[in-house]
Amino acid sequence: DAVDVMLNVHEVDEIVNVCSAISDTYGGINLEDIAAPKCFEIEKILQEKLDIPVFHDDQHGTAIITSAGLLNAIELAGKDIGDIKVVVIGAGAAGIASAKMYRQLGVKHIVMIDSKGVIHSGRDDLNKYKQDFAIETTDRTLDDALKNADMVLGLSSGNIISQDMVKTMAHDAIIFACANPIPEITPDRVISVRPDIIVGTGRSDFPNQVNNVLGFPFIFRGALDVGAKKITENMKIAAVKALANLAKEPVPYYVKAAYNNPDMKYGREHIIPTPFSKEVLVWVASAVAKAAFDDGVTDMKKCELENYQDKLRKMIYVDSDKSSSLTKN
Amino acid sequence: DAVDVMLNVHEVDEIVNVCSAISDTYGGINLEDIAAPKCFEIEKILQEKLDIPVFHDDQHGTAIITSAGLLNAIELAGKDIGDIKVVVIGAGAAGIASAKMYRQLGVKHIVMIDSKGVIHSGRDDLNKYKQDFAIETTDRTLDDALKNADMVLGLSSGNIISQDMVKTMAHDAIIFACANPIPEITPDRVISVRPDIIVGTGRSDFPNQVNNVLGFPFIFRGALDVGAKKITENMKIAAVKALANLAKEPVPYYVKAAYNNPDMKYGREHIIPTPFSKEVLVWVASAVAKAAFDDGVTDMKKCELENYQDKLRKMIYVDSDKSSSLTKN
Repeated sequence: DAVDVMLNVHEVDEIVNVCSAISDTYGGINLEDIAAPKCFEIEKILQEKLDIPVFHDDQHGTAIITSAGLLNAIELAGKDIGDIKVVVIGAGAAGIASAKMYRQLGVKHIVMIDSKGVIHSGRDDLNKYKQDFAIETTDRTLDDALKNADMVLGLSSGNIISQDMVKTMAHDAIIFACANPIPEITPDRVISVRPDIIVGTGRSDFPNQVNNVLGFPFIFRGALDVGAKKITENMKIAAVKALANLAKEPVPYYVKAAYNNPDMKYGREHIIPTPFSKEVLVWVASAVAKAAFDDGVTDMKKCELENYQDKLRKMIYVDSDKSSSLTKN
Repeated sequence: DAVDVMLNVHEVDEIVNVCSAISDTYGGINLEDIAAPKCFEIEKILQEKLDIPVFHDDQHGTAIITSAGLLNAIELAGKDIGDIKVVVIGAGAAGIASAKMYRQLGVKHIVMIDSKGVIHSGRDDLNKYKQDFAIETTDRTLDDALKNADMVLGLSSGNIISQDMVKTMAHDAIIFACANPIPEITPDRVISVRPDIIVGTGRSDFPNQVNNVLGFPFIFRGALDVGAKKITENMKIAAVKALANLAKEPVPYYVKAAYNNPDMKYGREHIIPTPFSKEVLVWVASAVAKAAFDDGVTDMKKCELENYQDKLRKMIYVDSDKSSSLTKN
């Protein structure tokens, strides 16, 4: 029942005013296609002003899905999140939001790169959002930054990561090369020089597709079902963990069929769930609903998670008996 | 596919700004529940600013439907529209818009009444919209105004028209007593003292129900189907004439069944079509579409009315063969 409302205004205060004026109509607002840095301000003001969930998918979608992959990757590699080095290429809405979320998950060493190179404390051309990620470093280029990196999130353009750069990354690193349609580097080029590195892209024809459809529909479902007044940080982190955990579950038969891959299972080629998995609704929506309840942003007196998961499962499987065999029970 | 968008802003410029900002989303905008005089300005500014139809049903719905009744009533009575006297009780959105439309249809003598009595040129408490209807007269009360009136449109409150007042009205007059749920005077009280007078009310349990559902859904249908950029005066008048003409057609069997009245036909108890008649769609939408085309407010190169009417008829009757027997030929 979502409704696309196109706005033909462009300034922060105009967009805020229009969203506020029509907000009584909606259970929640998913902002779309608003560039940084305006998007940060608009989301913040609206979330303070309104008592319905406001979410900017362009920011948090990529953050949440790549965070899930990151958690699984470091678990597989036996690394401590406080020790890893993360490189984010692109300091727009998605880049900034992802870096913030990685920080929240415990990442201490983040190198951010914009069109002028590494964001370091010597630069005087940074807005306050980029400034927040400026670090003391002698690194200036992508080449410099990728040395010993445990993760790189590419939100830039095709083919900018070379095989030579990949060779310098840390062991068992993860690369999310999200430039579309041509990734920063393709999985085959990574694997041929560094078989230990896990790769995800924005494309459906490669493993580990970073697709925002894994996030916002189910985050809103969970938030709306408990009457959440906002989307808290904990609700987003709950979505991250639900995605990370779901990736470890047996892959449903219809997903294997869709990819023509009967052996599909948790591992380097399945570090995050696929957009085809209907279980994402059950896992993400229920985790988000519980986090909303725990954070006290709903008027609910109690949160019956079991019943709610059953209800969600019935929404996606016509024959609900059959479905139980697909899931952990 | 209409969407209710509730606005929580109240000033003219705020409402205009919000409607403009979201207008790209919609094929047309039906304003609702905006009081006079703001509604006049908002509708005018939006219609000038946007290239989609903007319509304020609270104003034009009553105007269009009662105009249809008026045209039929004076035809039955053999009166000339230039000679009649019309009294409008209530000078809000619907009252002003109705008076304007009657004027456009050729009515010269209109007496308007607000909560302070007759709107005359000696008053200094009138906004510009009421001032437009101020007349030189010694009449001050409803009692005074109703003498020799050929039509009265009541948009006020229950039981304010007495049988004594009715007695003084012109022969074969028409009374639209639209106060809800208690009309300004009930049909039985009119008929018992003046059997020549035709009465319509807002209620479904009396004949000649003045119901806006006869208007806006089909006006928008016609306007949207030809891609009209606005709703012109001619389009509204076309709706009036379509309703007046449809009232003269044989009443469909399902309407007779709904009212349990097998003898239902054009006349004093059926001066306007009923809200149950599905033919209203065919007649009103096609008339409005043609008027839009004639007024050049669409990009259409030609207007194939016959095909369009067939298409509309197929929308309402499952068995389109059967439906032809309900209609003129």
